[in-house]
Amino acid sequence: MNFASDNWAGATEPVMAALARHQAGAVPSYGVDPISKSVTDRLSEIFEREVAVFFVGTGSAANALALSAYAKPGAAFFCHPDAHIQVDECGCPEFFTGGGKLVSVPGENGKMSPQALETAIAAFPEGVVHHGQAAAVSITQATESGTVHSLDEIRAIKAVAQTRGLPLHMDGARFANALVSLGCSPADMTWRAGVDVLSFGATKNGCWCAEAVVFFDAEATRGFEYARKRAGHLFSKSRFIAAQFEGYLADDNWLATAAHANDMALRLAEGIREAGGRTAWPVEANELFPILKKADADRLKAGGAFFYEWPASGVPAEAGPKEDEVCLRLVTSFATTEADVERFREILAGS
Amino acid sequence: MNFASDNWAGATEPVMAALARHQAGAVPSYGVDPISKSVTDRLSEIFEREVAVFFVGTGSAANALALSAYAKPGAAFFCHPDAHIQVDECGCPEFFTGGGKLVSVPGENGKMSPQALETAIAAFPEGVVHHGQAAAVSITQATESGTVHSLDEIRAIKAVAQTRGLPLHMDGARFANALVSLGCSPADMTWRAGVDVLSFGATKNGCWCAEAVVFFDAEATRGFEYARKRAGHLFSKSRFIAAQFEGYLADDNWLATAAHANDMALRLAEGIREAGGRTAWPVEANELFPILKKADADRLKAGGAFFYEWPASGVPAEAGPKEDEVCLRLVTSFATTEADVERFREILAGS
Amino acid sequence: MNFASDNWAGATEPVMAALARHQAGAVPSYGVDPISKSVTDRLSEIFEREVAVFFVGTGSAANALALSAYAKPGAAFFCHPDAHIQVDECGCPEFFTGGGKLVSVPGENGKMSPQALETAIAAFPEGVVHHGQAAAVSITQATESGTVHSLDEIRAIKAVAQTRGLPLHMDGARFANALVSLGCSPADMTWRAGVDVLSFGATKNGCWCAEAVVFFDAEATRGFEYARKRAGHLFSKSRFIAAQFEGYLADDNWLATAAHANDMALRLAEGIREAGGRTAWPVEANELFPILKKADADRLKAGGAFFYEWPASGVPAEAGPKEDEVCLRLVTSFATTEADVERFREILAGS
Amino acid sequence: MNFASDNWAGATEPVMAALARHQAGAVPSYGVDPISKSVTDRLSEIFEREVAVFFVGTGSAANALALSAYAKPGAAFFCHPDAHIQVDECGCPEFFTGGGKLVSVPGENGKMSPQALETAIAAFPEGVVHHGQAAAVSITQATESGTVHSLDEIRAIKAVAQTRGLPLHMDGARFANALVSLGCSPADMTWRAGVDVLSFGATKNGCWCAEAVVFFDAEATRGFEYARKRAGHLFSKSRFIAAQFEGYLADDNWLATAAHANDMALRLAEGIREAGGRTAWPVEANELFPILKKADADRLKAGGAFFYEWPASGVPAEAGPKEDEVCLRLVTSFATTEADVERFREILAGS
Repeated sequence: MNFASDNWAGATEPVMAALARHQAGAVPSYGVDPISKSVTDRLSEIFEREVAVFFVGTGSAANALALSAYAKPGAAFFCHPDAHIQVDECGCPEFFTGGGKLVSVPGENGKMSPQALETAIAAFPEGVVHHGQAAAVSITQATESGTVHSLDEIRAIKAVAQTRGLPLHMDGARFANALVSLGCSPADMTWRAGVDVLSFGATKNGCWCAEAVVFFDAEATRGFEYARKRAGHLFSKSRFIAAQFEGYLADDNWLATAAHANDMALRLAEGIREAGGRTAWPVEANELFPILKKADADRLKAGGAFFYEWPASGVPAEAGPKEDEVCLRLVTSFATTEADVERFREILAGS
Repeated sequence: MNFASDNWAGATEPVMAALARHQAGAVPSYGVDPISKSVTDRLSEIFEREVAVFFVGTGSAANALALSAYAKPGAAFFCHPDAHIQVDECGCPEFFTGGGKLVSVPGENGKMSPQALETAIAAFPEGVVHHGQAAAVSITQATESGTVHSLDEIRAIKAVAQTRGLPLHMDGARFANALVSLGCSPADMTWRAGVDVLSFGATKNGCWCAEAVVFFDAEATRGFEYARKRAGHLFSKSRFIAAQFEGYLADDNWLATAAHANDMALRLAEGIREAGGRTAWPVEANELFPILKKADADRLKAGGAFFYEWPASGVPAEAGPKEDEVCLRLVTSFATTEADVERFREILAGS
Repeated sequence: MNFASDNWAGATEPVMAALARHQAGAVPSYGVDPISKSVTDRLSEIFEREVAVFFVGTGSAANALALSAYAKPGAAFFCHPDAHIQVDECGCPEFFTGGGKLVSVPGENGKMSPQALETAIAAFPEGVVHHGQAAAVSITQATESGTVHSLDEIRAIKAVAQTRGLPLHMDGARFANALVSLGCSPADMTWRAGVDVLSFGATKNGCWCAEAVVFFDAEATRGFEYARKRAGHLFSKSRFIAAQFEGYLADDNWLATAAHANDMALRLAEGIREAGGRTAWPVEANELFPILKKADADRLKAGGAFFYEWPASGVPAEAGPKEDEVCLRLVTSFATTEADVERFREILAGS
Repeated sequence: MNFASDNWAGATEPVMAALARHQAGAVPSYGVDPISKSVTDRLSEIFEREVAVFFVGTGSAANALALSAYAKPGAAFFCHPDAHIQVDECGCPEFFTGGGKLVSVPGENGKMSPQALETAIAAFPEGVVHHGQAAAVSITQATESGTVHSLDEIRAIKAVAQTRGLPLHMDGARFANALVSLGCSPADMTWRAGVDVLSFGATKNGCWCAEAVVFFDAEATRGFEYARKRAGHLFSKSRFIAAQFEGYLADDNWLATAAHANDMALRLAEGIREAGGRTAWPVEANELFPILKKADADRLKAGGAFFYEWPASGVPAEAGPKEDEVCLRLVTSFATTEADVERFREILAGS
């Protein structure tokens, strides 16, 4: 029973089939192959407008390179304190932006508050050389707390960003999970809501290493291919990233796997509620953070469930874990089975 | 007939089979999976000593990260003017080393001359703050000119490096091709000859994206896992790089594909000689640089051969291409067929 | 009446006299002159042990270079949220450390709380590659809130740092002001309390551009001269920085000017108290942050006093400025006259 | 007899007088003081157009920051192999440009050949991501070989740069010496000849630390104040750099000191010729590189002359030093006296 991470899962059948399909034959390297071209066209269709697409190998690279397109001396990037770029990328964004500063902007449920963003940006007034320059805002969709920004919430953040002309980056490591959660179109969740550049993640949702930086802001792509190459993220046999996307996007596979993972998460949440537990944040995608009795957590572990304990950071003390409780992170994926979920619920229910 | 690049080839059967074999199932992410462990053990066997292995996705990343392990303020890295790190990585080594300088050290046949290296290093005397600090020496094996350093040549370069305590890096993007060319052991071609860190490339020789930084210098690995992560080169589903290596190394597949590619190159060279052509440099691995009549080159192109024209840089004027001649680069790979080679030879022979 | 900044002041007579004294004559450049040597010896005397001294031109350079001596991939540096390195150096520390992250550690009166430091460091557990590496702790003495760490407070912070082997940096832009405030020795306030490297500032206290990075940690100085040169901070006519220090340190001039500035600050504080005002933080050096009626502040401005309004950040709401109040920053220096102070008090008192 | 470096000299009377004149009094810090304003206005007059002026403390900082204004991923900057930025700045340009590559472009007499520049730029074809991006061309005026580019030579280099839209940087560490050598106007030697940004050096010619980045390209100054601050090169008491320039530029002092230095160099050259010696390159400013008998050099040293031996790099073998000869560098400055020169000539003449 793997609930440790969606990264522990392998790859889906369609993705592996696409890799196999393109195994042989000579095609130009470094991204100018026909498969890359057709995937880019497909993404333009999906986003309902022409997009610039740059494949990379990891989500950290996608995020940090995307931000680097907006780097400037003394740059400040605004993100939630729990954002992956702030907490989990070992300084990659700072490194790729030549020493940018990631400013934490608090907010409930893993989402920055627009008011807090306003305050944070105000600390970087234009023309005051000492504090540096506000450079961009970054949100994560779905968030690191397993929640999903509504379209209105994205628009509200963008509205604040726009008062200073700041671009909006979306870390979409779990883009598909958020998308099926909202039930809106990719265009609605991105550029129509004000997103300028997207880290379009496919790895967690069934590829093995397929990430893309998708620009809706054509101007920002100037020199970006050089930035990617300089970071060692232009793959010679780039067709194999494209191939993964081909299998991923075909027949709406990506939406189906995301819907499955979200569904598994909801069923786990249901089981937790039934067993008298609660979650630190609403369950809106494929991650959930149950607060359980330590004894229950131990029993689950003993029963073969893999998961991590997690700090319920930002959760008000009265709602957070009590002395005999613990907060866990459970992550579901395309590979999570109903049997896994049922077994988890059974152990928790004590049967 | 692809002779444009070994990067135009796909992946070998054993590599794809290994990917498929590990497609499903939950394993820990970020490189602590059992497949990564077993491949690392296998590499220690192959190199006849314990080695530290760091998987990355591209050869540029491997090279630049390897050099970054020896970075210091004002660092100078010494390499051949045609080295991939100098010419073909868009400043990735400079970027990852925080602004290191790549100093070109000339020499014949794509290999730096030890005497020239001595002169180059002498321009960075110890304690003279203005010029910076000599940091490391880097060689490419096989070279960008399709030649292979003999063990004596590697040792001679190391001997010069050692006078100043400089580590020796080997860019092994075509490591296997060089190895079968020399017919020596991996240990002989690396640490026994003085190599401290190796970019062990597998992509060109049949994987789709499998590169490893292999350290023989344990001290230099301190903090290296952070450097890799900071550069966005730690893959979440890292098992799939390991899997490629598993297939690559099994049953000496890697040596067989390299031997095949080298053999195809020799046969092409034979055909060129028979047709009255010559090569800019000796043919010792899987790249050759024929100097042909332009008309012949045009006929080959028209006949369906893919290749690039190439500057015969460093070749003495009298040996280089004359007015009606052109220098080409032909690259063979595991995927090159005897039929391709025969067809090429036939067209060239005018039949 | 300049209370805007100690940077608005010029230079003291002894400093200018020293510059004039060394105006003519040929001496070796780039810091190997006899004046630099004698100043370094003098600093070793002052600190009661051999120290390594590196002159630079600005406080930002001193701080950022000092931190860069401890840089590593994914480095985290811990400082107070109001620290100069965090707020006022336009990303210089991030830039010079190759993308380090400055982690804000809260605490009262401009000083980080040791408990908060413990928590902050714990977020970077050893061996967890995602979060990066704890690298160093930095405190400011005197603080940006005009307070001074006691020796016990410094030791308590060092004790936490030491649990993870982290070096302690002291931003001593107002070192002399803190020193005379505590009445202890330079050795007591630095290495005896656990400081490993000090930005020894002299500019604000009467030089025009004289800053030094003073290392008590000999190991960390390896390559530091290259780091300084690479940052463009090795002055060719370096003797003139040394000359400023010569005049500054002679006859305890530096302690006298600092004592004067502190005294002026205390007198201002007295006047504010008498007028029914209060300060946001205790007045312990040469900066004070009065909370006054807006009308009073306006009257002072109209009367010719220069100062900045200041956010009373971190001050509890009940103690902070009310609707009709404003928090100001007043800074005194060697150049502040008793007449200035009296005039300020008179205006404030309404006479 | 100091001929070791113009950096061994102190500061001129007018410069010290200006420092003393502005010693006292409160003026705004960080460059917004009236002295900085008036010096900037004066420079606009001198250059016969509005210029943007950024004071910094060292020539390395001026050069590296100027280049950083044109940095981009994989940037290549073209300069002579003997350029100060290539040889003597410990990687500061590489560091400040985020890992730019300095490409050596050979040419006689310390000046790059336009043909060689054309070839060098051609190695960075537009759109070829592997090699990086041509970013800017940098020349030194006067050169490191003691020669001066004619206006036609500057224009010819600019013409090549312009074919690719590349900006032209001039390292003017010895700007005044070149200017009086050519006898032209500052405007003629810079923007009218195609220079976009100038490192306007005053330190070597009589200031103690006064350098300015002067932009003729207004677009490139966007964000430059942040770049300077981020590098720790915005001085708090910036008025003192301005004051030095005030004294330097007043009454054409700068031209007088440069003319004197050049004259001293010419007289030294005359003495060398008379003694049967020769120079490696023409003597056109305040540096000369005599090739003398070793015995003569030893006698000069014994007689109290300070100078460095120098590699006569790039000088054809037949013109370079023979076995019993040595190449020296002699540098004159405002502080060089006729008596020094006469004494040198006497010793050399053997009297």
